[in-house]
Amino acid sequence: MSNEVYVLGGYQTDFARNWTKEKKHFNALMREGVQGALEASQIDPRDVQVGHVGNFAAELYCKQGHLGAFFVEAHPAFSGLPTGRHEAACASGSIALLAALAEIQAGWYDLSCVVGIEQMKTVPATEGGDYLGTAAWYEHEAKGVEFPFPKLFGKLGDEYDKRYGLKDEHLAGISAVNYANAKLNPLAQTRSWYMNREHACAKDDYNSTIGGRIRLADCSQVTDGTATVFLASRAYAEKYARARGIALESIPRIKGWGHHTARLRFADKVAESAKAEYVLPHVRSTITDAWRRAGIADVNGIDGIETHDCFTTSEYMAIDHFGITRPGESWKAVEEGWLEIGGKHPINPSGGLIGAGHPVGATGVRQLLDGYRQVTGTAGDYQVDGARNFQTLNIGGSGTTSVSFIIGVA
Amino acid sequence: MSNEVYVLGGYQTDFARNWTKEKKHFNALMREGVQGALEASQIDPRDVQVGHVGNFAAELYCKQGHLGAFFVEAHPAFSGLPTGRHEAACASGSIALLAALAEIQAGWYDLSCVVGIEQMKTVPATEGGDYLGTAAWYEHEAKGVEFPFPKLFGKLGDEYDKRYGLKDEHLAGISAVNYANAKLNPLAQTRSWYMNREHACAKDDYNSTIGGRIRLADCSQVTDGTATVFLASRAYAEKYARARGIALESIPRIKGWGHHTARLRFADKVAESAKAEYVLPHVRSTITDAWRRAGIADVNGIDGIETHDCFTTSEYMAIDHFGITRPGESWKAVEEGWLEIGGKHPINPSGGLIGAGHPVGATGVRQLLDGYRQVTGTAGDYQVDGARNFQTLNIGGSGTTSVSFIIGVA
Repeated sequence: MSNEVYVLGGYQTDFARNWTKEKKHFNALMREGVQGALEASQIDPRDVQVGHVGNFAAELYCKQGHLGAFFVEAHPAFSGLPTGRHEAACASGSIALLAALAEIQAGWYDLSCVVGIEQMKTVPATEGGDYLGTAAWYEHEAKGVEFPFPKLFGKLGDEYDKRYGLKDEHLAGISAVNYANAKLNPLAQTRSWYMNREHACAKDDYNSTIGGRIRLADCSQVTDGTATVFLASRAYAEKYARARGIALESIPRIKGWGHHTARLRFADKVAESAKAEYVLPHVRSTITDAWRRAGIADVNGIDGIETHDCFTTSEYMAIDHFGITRPGESWKAVEEGWLEIGGKHPINPSGGLIGAGHPVGATGVRQLLDGYRQVTGTAGDYQVDGARNFQTLNIGGSGTTSVSFIIGVA
Repeated sequence: MSNEVYVLGGYQTDFARNWTKEKKHFNALMREGVQGALEASQIDPRDVQVGHVGNFAAELYCKQGHLGAFFVEAHPAFSGLPTGRHEAACASGSIALLAALAEIQAGWYDLSCVVGIEQMKTVPATEGGDYLGTAAWYEHEAKGVEFPFPKLFGKLGDEYDKRYGLKDEHLAGISAVNYANAKLNPLAQTRSWYMNREHACAKDDYNSTIGGRIRLADCSQVTDGTATVFLASRAYAEKYARARGIALESIPRIKGWGHHTARLRFADKVAESAKAEYVLPHVRSTITDAWRRAGIADVNGIDGIETHDCFTTSEYMAIDHFGITRPGESWKAVEEGWLEIGGKHPINPSGGLIGAGHPVGATGVRQLLDGYRQVTGTAGDYQVDGARNFQTLNIGGSGTTSVSFIIGVA
C-alpha cells in the first residue's frame, strides 16, 4: 500500500462496565475513550487534526445523534476540529477507520483519532434486541421478531448444515475457546463468567435456546464500551518515533484492507451464493482484497486473526473464508486446536465478541487495537508469540457489510 | 487541489413529495435517487465502484439503520460494492461527500456515487421536532422542549441583536428571496406555497411564532427527499468526456473544501466567540479553508452560494461569514438586493432550505448538485448567468459541524 499509514496505539474501556448503572452519559464514555488514548499513546492533543466516530445507533440507545460533535467535547484542544460519524451496523467502527485511512492517504491530515463507541445497556434486553434489528432489513427480517439476530445467524448455521453438515459440538468448541481467551483479557466483558466446553455443549439450563439453533453459549453479548486508535501519516510517525528514540519500523502499519457490502436480506445472500465456492463470497473477497493490498499470499502470512464472532456460526464461517480449511471443513480447525492462542491459526486471542464483549460500534476499532497490541508484543496474557501480522474481520448485519484490516510491523 | 475530483451530475427527487402518503419505504426513495442519477448522468451502473450514503436519523424516522446496505439494493449491479453511511446531523450529506472525495484522492476508486437521503414525514411534527433535537445536545438543549431548533436559531438572532442590532424585517427579506427563488425551481417543496415580504414581516396568523424570535416564515421545513451525485477521478472523467465528445474542462471539479466542528451546545459556542471577529468562527474557517484550497481570494471569486438557511438567522449569519458584508452588517446585503439571482452575490437561487425544502441528510448533496447545475448552465429558471464557481455551506446542529465545497469549471 502506498502512502503508508501507521497506528500509534490507543485505548479500550473495560467492556464489563455498565455505564447506565454508573449513571454516566454517552459523553462520559467518549471522554474516557479519547483521554485514555491520548494518555496511553502520549500524544499531545494539539497534534490531533481530525476525529472520526464509529457508532451504530446512539439515536435509539441514547437518544443522541451528531456524534462527531462529542469528539470535540472530549478535550478542550479539539474545538474546531473536523469530525464525522460513520455507520454500517456492527461494522461501524471499521467504516470510521476507512474514512480516516483514506484522508491520510489523500494527504489531508497527518494524525487522526478514531473512536468506536456504543452505549447499549440503557434499555431492556428485548428493546435492545429490537433496535439491533435495524441492522437487518427491519420490516422484512426483524419487525415483531424477538431477538432477530440469533435467528439470522442460526440460519447461517443451517445453510452450512445443508451444504456440508454441521455439528453443534464444533460451534461449542468455538465458544469455549473465546470464553477461555477472555479470561486472559483484563478488559473482557466475560472474564469472570463461567463457560466451558461442557456447558457450551449442554442443551439445558446451562445453555438455553435463544433463537433457531443458536443457544446462549453461541452468542456474543452487547455491552457499553469504546475503543480508540490513532492513525498517522509517515511524516507524523517519523516525528513520533524520533521523539521516543524508537525505530519507525517498530511502529505498526495498516498493510492492507478490504471492504464489500452484500445484499441486505440473509435470504438474498444465500440465494446469490447458491452455486458459489463460499457461503458469503463478498466476505471472502474482503479478506483476499486485504491480502492483495498487503502483498500477502494467503492466511499463512497472517500470525493471528481478530474476527467477528457475533455468534459461533459467524466464526465458523470465517474459518473457511480465511482459507484455514477448505470450504465447509471449519470443524477441522476446531478439532485440531488450530484456533487457540498457541495454535496454528489463532483466532480471537482477546476473546472476540463472545468473550471480550460486543459494544457494536466499538468492535471494529477494538479488533484493530488488539491487532496493534499483538504485533507490538503488548497483549499481555493473550499475546500470540512473535506475531508480526494480524488481520481483522468486522461484519455488519447478517454478513452484509464486511471490512478487514491487516496491521503489521515491517 | 491535487488529484482532481470531478462531478458528473446527479439527480434530485421532488422535495414536495410525501413518501409516507405514497406508502413508499425508505428503500424506494433510495432506488429512485440512485436510478434517477444513473439515468440523468448516463452512467453504466457497472462503472460505480463505491456507494456513500449521507443520512441523519433513519433509525428514528424509519426504524432502519445499516443504510449503506440500501445502496446495494438500488441496482442489481451493485451487489458486493463497498458502502458506508455518514452522519453529522444536517451536514450528513456533506460528510458523505468528504468520505467519497478523500477515497478518490487517495487513489482507491475512480467513480463514487454519493446519496444524501432522509424520509421524515413518517411521524407527526412534534415527534419529528423531538428527533431533530438529537442534532443538538439532547439532554441539555432539547429534552422536553417543543421544537428545540427554532429556539436555538432564535438565539443566534438574539446574539446578533446583542452584538450589532438586528431587525426582523431583514430576516423577512431573506425569507422572501428564498420563497421567490423556489417558485423557479420545479423540485422545490414550497413552489406552490404563498409567501411574500409582507406575509414574512407580519406578526399575525400569516406568520405565527414558532420559538423565540423565529416565526413561520423564518423556518425551513423538513421533507422527504434524496439528492445523488457522482464523483470521479480524472481518469474516469477523461473517459466520460471522450465518450461524449466533450472537453474535460467542461466538467465541473471540486476545487476546494472546508470542514470544522465547534462545541455542541449553542451557549458554549457563543461563549467561545465572545471576543472573536465572527459569531461562529469555525464556520468562517470552513468558508476560508475552501477558498484557500481552491486558490480563490475571497467571495468575489464566487459567482453564487447555496447556503444552509435552516432558519433566516443562519443565512443572516452566513452573509457576513462569507464576507459579503463586514461582520454584523448582513442587513446591507438584504437591503441592496445583492442576494437575489441577478444580484451581486446570489444566495440560494434554488430557494435554499426555506424554499427548496430540507430533507436533512440530503441537503449537503442537494447543494452540491445545485452548484453543478449552475456551473454547467443547466439550472433552468434559477440559473445565475455565467456562473463558473459556486460555493456551498452545509451546517449540522446549531452551527456545530460545518462543511463547504467549491465546485467550478476551469
